[in-house]
Amino acid sequence: MDFYSINEIPVKVHGRTVEGACPLPLFWNHAGVEVNVAASELWIELSVDCGFHEPWIAVELNGALMSRQMLLPGEHSLCLFRSMTPDVVKNVKFYRELQAMSEDDRCHILVKGFKTDGKFFPVEDKKLKLEFIGDSITSGEGTYGATTDTDWLAMYMSSSRHYASIIEKSLDAEARIISQGGWGVFCGWDNDVRHNIPSVYEPVCGLATGEFNEKLGASKPYDFSSWVPDAIIVNLGTNDDSAFSQPPLEIPGMGTFKQRRNEDGSYNAEDIKKVEDAIVNFLKMLRKHNPTSHIVWVYGMLGYGLTLPITDAMNRYRNETGDTNTAFINLPNTIRETFGAHMHPGYAAHIEAAKVLGEYLAARFNIPVKEVLGNL
Amino acid sequence: MDFYSINEIPVKVHGRTVEGACPLPLFWNHAGVEVNVAASELWIELSVDCGFHEPWIAVELNGALMSRQMLLPGEHSLCLFRSMTPDVVKNVKFYRELQAMSEDDRCHILVKGFKTDGKFFPVEDKKLKLEFIGDSITSGEGTYGATTDTDWLAMYMSSSRHYASIIEKSLDAEARIISQGGWGVFCGWDNDVRHNIPSVYEPVCGLATGEFNEKLGASKPYDFSSWVPDAIIVNLGTNDDSAFSQPPLEIPGMGTFKQRRNEDGSYNAEDIKKVEDAIVNFLKMLRKHNPTSHIVWVYGMLGYGLTLPITDAMNRYRNETGDTNTAFINLPNTIRETFGAHMHPGYAAHIEAAKVLGEYLAARFNIPVKEVLGNL
Amino acid sequence: MDFYSINEIPVKVHGRTVEGACPLPLFWNHAGVEVNVAASELWIELSVDCGFHEPWIAVELNGALMSRQMLLPGEHSLCLFRSMTPDVVKNVKFYRELQAMSEDDRCHILVKGFKTDGKFFPVEDKKLKLEFIGDSITSGEGTYGATTDTDWLAMYMSSSRHYASIIEKSLDAEARIISQGGWGVFCGWDNDVRHNIPSVYEPVCGLATGEFNEKLGASKPYDFSSWVPDAIIVNLGTNDDSAFSQPPLEIPGMGTFKQRRNEDGSYNAEDIKKVEDAIVNFLKMLRKHNPTSHIVWVYGMLGYGLTLPITDAMNRYRNETGDTNTAFINLPNTIRETFGAHMHPGYAAHIEAAKVLGEYLAARFNIPVKEVLGNL
Amino acid sequence: MDFYSINEIPVKVHGRTVEGACPLPLFWNHAGVEVNVAASELWIELSVDCGFHEPWIAVELNGALMSRQMLLPGEHSLCLFRSMTPDVVKNVKFYRELQAMSEDDRCHILVKGFKTDGKFFPVEDKKLKLEFIGDSITSGEGTYGATTDTDWLAMYMSSSRHYASIIEKSLDAEARIISQGGWGVFCGWDNDVRHNIPSVYEPVCGLATGEFNEKLGASKPYDFSSWVPDAIIVNLGTNDDSAFSQPPLEIPGMGTFKQRRNEDGSYNAEDIKKVEDAIVNFLKMLRKHNPTSHIVWVYGMLGYGLTLPITDAMNRYRNETGDTNTAFINLPNTIRETFGAHMHPGYAAHIEAAKVLGEYLAARFNIPVKEVLGNL
Repeated sequence: MDFYSINEIPVKVHGRTVEGACPLPLFWNHAGVEVNVAASELWIELSVDCGFHEPWIAVELNGALMSRQMLLPGEHSLCLFRSMTPDVVKNVKFYRELQAMSEDDRCHILVKGFKTDGKFFPVEDKKLKLEFIGDSITSGEGTYGATTDTDWLAMYMSSSRHYASIIEKSLDAEARIISQGGWGVFCGWDNDVRHNIPSVYEPVCGLATGEFNEKLGASKPYDFSSWVPDAIIVNLGTNDDSAFSQPPLEIPGMGTFKQRRNEDGSYNAEDIKKVEDAIVNFLKMLRKHNPTSHIVWVYGMLGYGLTLPITDAMNRYRNETGDTNTAFINLPNTIRETFGAHMHPGYAAHIEAAKVLGEYLAARFNIPVKEVLGNL
Repeated sequence: MDFYSINEIPVKVHGRTVEGACPLPLFWNHAGVEVNVAASELWIELSVDCGFHEPWIAVELNGALMSRQMLLPGEHSLCLFRSMTPDVVKNVKFYRELQAMSEDDRCHILVKGFKTDGKFFPVEDKKLKLEFIGDSITSGEGTYGATTDTDWLAMYMSSSRHYASIIEKSLDAEARIISQGGWGVFCGWDNDVRHNIPSVYEPVCGLATGEFNEKLGASKPYDFSSWVPDAIIVNLGTNDDSAFSQPPLEIPGMGTFKQRRNEDGSYNAEDIKKVEDAIVNFLKMLRKHNPTSHIVWVYGMLGYGLTLPITDAMNRYRNETGDTNTAFINLPNTIRETFGAHMHPGYAAHIEAAKVLGEYLAARFNIPVKEVLGNL
Repeated sequence: MDFYSINEIPVKVHGRTVEGACPLPLFWNHAGVEVNVAASELWIELSVDCGFHEPWIAVELNGALMSRQMLLPGEHSLCLFRSMTPDVVKNVKFYRELQAMSEDDRCHILVKGFKTDGKFFPVEDKKLKLEFIGDSITSGEGTYGATTDTDWLAMYMSSSRHYASIIEKSLDAEARIISQGGWGVFCGWDNDVRHNIPSVYEPVCGLATGEFNEKLGASKPYDFSSWVPDAIIVNLGTNDDSAFSQPPLEIPGMGTFKQRRNEDGSYNAEDIKKVEDAIVNFLKMLRKHNPTSHIVWVYGMLGYGLTLPITDAMNRYRNETGDTNTAFINLPNTIRETFGAHMHPGYAAHIEAAKVLGEYLAARFNIPVKEVLGNL
Repeated sequence: MDFYSINEIPVKVHGRTVEGACPLPLFWNHAGVEVNVAASELWIELSVDCGFHEPWIAVELNGALMSRQMLLPGEHSLCLFRSMTPDVVKNVKFYRELQAMSEDDRCHILVKGFKTDGKFFPVEDKKLKLEFIGDSITSGEGTYGATTDTDWLAMYMSSSRHYASIIEKSLDAEARIISQGGWGVFCGWDNDVRHNIPSVYEPVCGLATGEFNEKLGASKPYDFSSWVPDAIIVNLGTNDDSAFSQPPLEIPGMGTFKQRRNEDGSYNAEDIKKVEDAIVNFLKMLRKHNPTSHIVWVYGMLGYGLTLPITDAMNRYRNETGDTNTAFINLPNTIRETFGAHMHPGYAAHIEAAKVLGEYLAARFNIPVKEVLGNL
């Protein structure tokens, strides 16, 4: 078998990263590498590190999920397949199952290259490109794990069977994911105003911090022209809603923050305005960088509380900008039967959500919907 | 068997009607009479008339749909059950499967009473009361009939297996329906500004016109305190959206009407404002008459076009009134596989919609959801 | 509108009956008449009688179930549709929802003809012909009615949404049904050895007795060459199994009968042999009259107790005759969630059964399976 | 962290193996070790080897599938979880996803022990014990992998989401699996008469051959009293059926073998008798070693061809032995929509099969059925 460096073979890169980097960092959830290879055997060469939160990865062969496993610090040589008919071209996709971990600067996966006894062929782009932006729901938290499990851990997160990946498969699309558990569009679940997705949207990976990620290029500006999504799906608001029910948070050097409720339990108007302003501004930011993309705000998988404020902001954005290439859709709320681990939407809830959103996108882009249960 | 006049037995009346009327008119879709009776045999005595649009009716026994049939002009004596164990109390519900027909003044069903060999017992009220307000979707158009059928006919409409009745059964609730096919909140599908539901909401049955209905009391003010819904579900907007794609309509003596689109296909701002104003005013009307009811606007079963204008109006209503006891939910769009007759949502689409809305109401009112397929 | 006698128009007759009879008796469950008619209005003219067990009927328009209702003694003129576009050809099927009632000699439906303002056209035969033979399951008992209902009544029986009709629709076939609740292949549920289906299989309708049915021709030999089924589905054994758990039955003039169990609860070998002999003989009878039909014995919707005896008899039949054009398939047992009225398989159980058997027949006859929920 | 040898901690062993062996060989599909441990971190220590067919394994945490991966030759230290709340007891199950590989003598997984910072607690036995005996279907072949994949490879086999494991989870049972792809009850798919499951049933693992497995104790007699199944499910016959359609096979030193068909395509009686004799003898063997177990023969997931011969043999067994503690059930045939990789039943087909068989076992043993999709 020969070793091929990641920059000397035709490889399709999934997820935002530094173009041409070698080794190639997989910053985001669902970030990965995809190859077409005629070989009997294929290995991937990785360099991995982490602190508390170890990265997990998944492997798909010809579009079907074959493997899901934990990676620990070290240099790894992972066999992706072996003993196969050499001449047949196989499609292999290796991707990260874990969100960018803002709380673990050491956590990273670097792809150095592949070993094989065969030959690589180019991977065609998919016709439909989808960018998903969200929180723990979009980080797939709870799609693996027992409903009784309540630790907050890397292993419960995924992108192999959550709504974005189900839609990706059923519409034959390619999906990128920008997400962080606990974060919102204005603030995090605990009133932490630093934890807003817009603040990390513009660099390559604004969530990957620390010296090592800095060197990798995570904080560099992202070239939005390099991958133009047909649709951007924003699934934010769940944590912004939660903040209204949490105690005040004191952030050293910044002050104390609290999204307030009125005495009758309704949202305080000033604080709702903060959320709405954040939405309007985020829509403007998204539009600035993605002038042609259809923007769909989806909401509801963990409660419908902010539906009206979100749509209020979307309407304000429309009125201010005249941009009508946006839409809002509720996704079905998670119910007792569809919860997964850590009180998050489980696999069944993601199937439901993927159905509604997938049908919307299929109709919008005139694409048939495939049944994909067997490949998840 | 003895005859019992409708006003001399304990009967539960479904749907708005004139209190104490004898015979009792069933004005609305799903309007009906429900009795508990220990008997071997039960007949209902009816007086029916119609022009083009004949009324259809359904019969439920102990909560299960047993019969659905057409009624034609004349005096009818309809057997609801026979040969049953006399001493056991049966619950029987007889109801109209057809919307109030604004285009057929003759169309009516009057319940004169029952014939039986047994004895009547009171019917308890359900704990949850739901009022559904809508257009053809809420008139159940397309829930019966082949997908190839395209005539506009009474027989394709129903309230025996559409989303409102599925929710009614699965939440053990009682539902009332105020609906008219082709109508909107501001105007009808064809730009007819007379065809707006708010204009007919306040009388007992503003849709039943003509001399005969007048005499029955259809145009009398409705006593909103007589039946207080826990939730009002408004499913309007689909025809308002349609109007933007239809040619101008000239209404003799009133002028020419047309909801306009801009050159780029987007909605004309002035005309959207008309829809939004109508929504705000309708919400105010609903709240005036139903001070305690939770108001849920649902939308999407035939396209998501007006989601943002509807929510914009809902937000304006919130800001103007401070009333936060409202919510907005998308219902899943109808897809190729779920269409029914006359290009309307079919039974499968209504099952999907009932799932999402039913779960929402179940969570809100803390009620378990029952499986009811076998009773539909 | 003009009246057309049943024997002067091109009508497709469903179910065994006396060829050319006018009026036309509908003896069996699912027996009916089907017409293609270009008209705005269509009425069917009926003559009906019954004692305890009133017949129910169903109406389908273009393949979709529109109406289900009770018929009572008398001459009836029933409107099947009205107000439709005159020139379009509609397909209308009117059929009996009730099994032949062996216990009610008066029970009958006679079709005299149709009234219409239009014109009739021939109805093409379906490519696939299926004969279903069975007991209460095949009489659709429990497919309508609440699970709490326990009376034994006509209204709980059907052929509009039980496994045979679901398969008929999903395979675009035509189905005939020979069934009687409580009967078996050897004896009835209560050890009544007179209640075996083979004894009534050979006449036109061996279950319709009494002077009136005699005159109609029910007891005449049936011409098996007049409608050759591609497959015969026998769903018997459930009542034969039940008999082993019931007390002895004394039949005046015939003796006392009891299918026995051994002390350990297993079936008595002599008595099982009676069932097996009956099966072998019935298979021979079926083959004699239907030399080319594929015979499938299905079993299990109310327990798997006799699976091995049934297959034992089927193997004996194979060995004795060399005829291998037979098969055996279990249908899924009814479970708590899928029961219907009167402790019988409900609609959901029939959907499950139709799936398994429908897929088998689809594979055997190379026919695609259509989704038909909306038309039931 | 401390290392604990497999024989010094309370570990529940799944699958037949040599009692007390250290390291512990995992011979069979689904063979594994299960522990309860209060710890923040747990590792398993393995010794693995293989030739062409590498073993795959799966890890479950608190009953939910977390990981599935390939293992390659070498000494492995695999992290099963980390960073968890130390004091909480976790249940962890590590098991083989690959059948015993009769064609790869080197293929093995040995469990040496665990490393942890915590403490082990005993694992309670489940109330229901199920033994599944079968071929490639029971080896889970095709439950992973794209439908277009046609290589015969270890990675397509599984026991993490096939019918046996779905039933195991939904009935809260423990399952053991004895299976080999391509084998039958009389002969293999290609007429190889050596490939019959009965010949390998009596030793610990009759399929694991070669010097190394010999030393491990695979060929030792199995102590059937050590784990008494409540039910034995035999899913054999599919390959025996296939042999009738394959060319003759010459086995050096043994002769040429061919299951014949008659000219009309039906099975040759002599050759069918060989299959039936094999079934009768296998039932006797099963009963000899498992005197109290309910034996259910299931069949049909890849065609119903041998239903009658199988039941014929089962009836002969009943008659010869008087043992009625057996049953036969068809499982639904795999259809176009439910196929998986390598032309085998896919995940969806296994869900269907698990439903029918699971309901049967649930009724038989009076156990509720749990919904488990989220844990697969």
